[in-house]
Amino acid sequence: MRDDLQPGQFLARGVCRHLASHGFSVVEEFVPDRGLRVDVMALGPKGEVWVVECKSSRADFQSDQKWQGYLEWCDRYFWAVDLEFPTELLPAETGLIIADAYDAEIVRMAPEDKLAAARRNKLIRKFATHAARRLHALRDPEAQLNAWA
Amino acid sequence: MRDDLQPGQFLARGVCRHLASHGFSVVEEFVPDRGLRVDVMALGPKGEVWVVECKSSRADFQSDQKWQGYLEWCDRYFWAVDLEFPTELLPAETGLIIADAYDAEIVRMAPEDKLAAARRNKLIRKFATHAARRLHALRDPEAQLNAWA
Repeated sequence: MRDDLQPGQFLARGVCRHLASHGFSVVEEFVPDRGLRVDVMALGPKGEVWVVECKSSRADFQSDQKWQGYLEWCDRYFWAVDLEFPTELLPAETGLIIADAYDAEIVRMAPEDKLAAARRNKLIRKFATHAARRLHALRDPEAQLNAWA
Repeated sequence: MRDDLQPGQFLARGVCRHLASHGFSVVEEFVPDRGLRVDVMALGPKGEVWVVECKSSRADFQSDQKWQGYLEWCDRYFWAVDLEFPTELLPAETGLIIADAYDAEIVRMAPEDKLAAARRNKLIRKFATHAARRLHALRDPEAQLNAWA
């Protein structure tokens, strides 16, 4: 178990494992647009785009001023929290995932608000670039990849 | 320098470094379609899809029965070889990259044969999935990702 992760990152790890078991591929800390950074972006087998924000505590949730800006960058939006979290705080019209560091479960499916085709394609291209660049940096750590965003 | 790589993989490493320096993101050993596996698939900043096959020797090139099948999965197709390779063997209507383990240079630009939009989108989605799954496996090696292709 890695001990260099923040509480929210442990939740993200469990979320990613769960989504992967359902055929989704995932990236963490994805930037859909300038000034936005989502905890987990998941790409489904049919091109579905889901966003999951991981909240480790009430304070973590209440300090989030940006989440409504994420809605337009996905087909479905979820919160991921642990079992202790006061889920009554969360907006009803969003999905809910209960997670720990090892796995997760979708407790409430998020409503679907489908992306337009052009935005979906652009997002998937950005997801591809994000994943490939980080993979490249891990595979070839001596490469001079500093110029990358 | 990793010593667990095959000669063609050293060329691929140099090719990937070079393409990355031009804003492309790259994956290796990508499967565009059943029975096909390309050495390097590169995704450009405007969604361009390039394929690069790396050949470490004359025998390596002459034993390749599949390369023409790759042409329909990219906008531009390149060979990457080292300085010793007899480049006169290579078909004229393809791109040429001279590479070593550390870098590469495009010596002859490949002609463009643009993918149809639907195939491009499908390929980019597959590229995204390939990269994200391999990245996930490296970031979280304890995850049970065995079900993946």
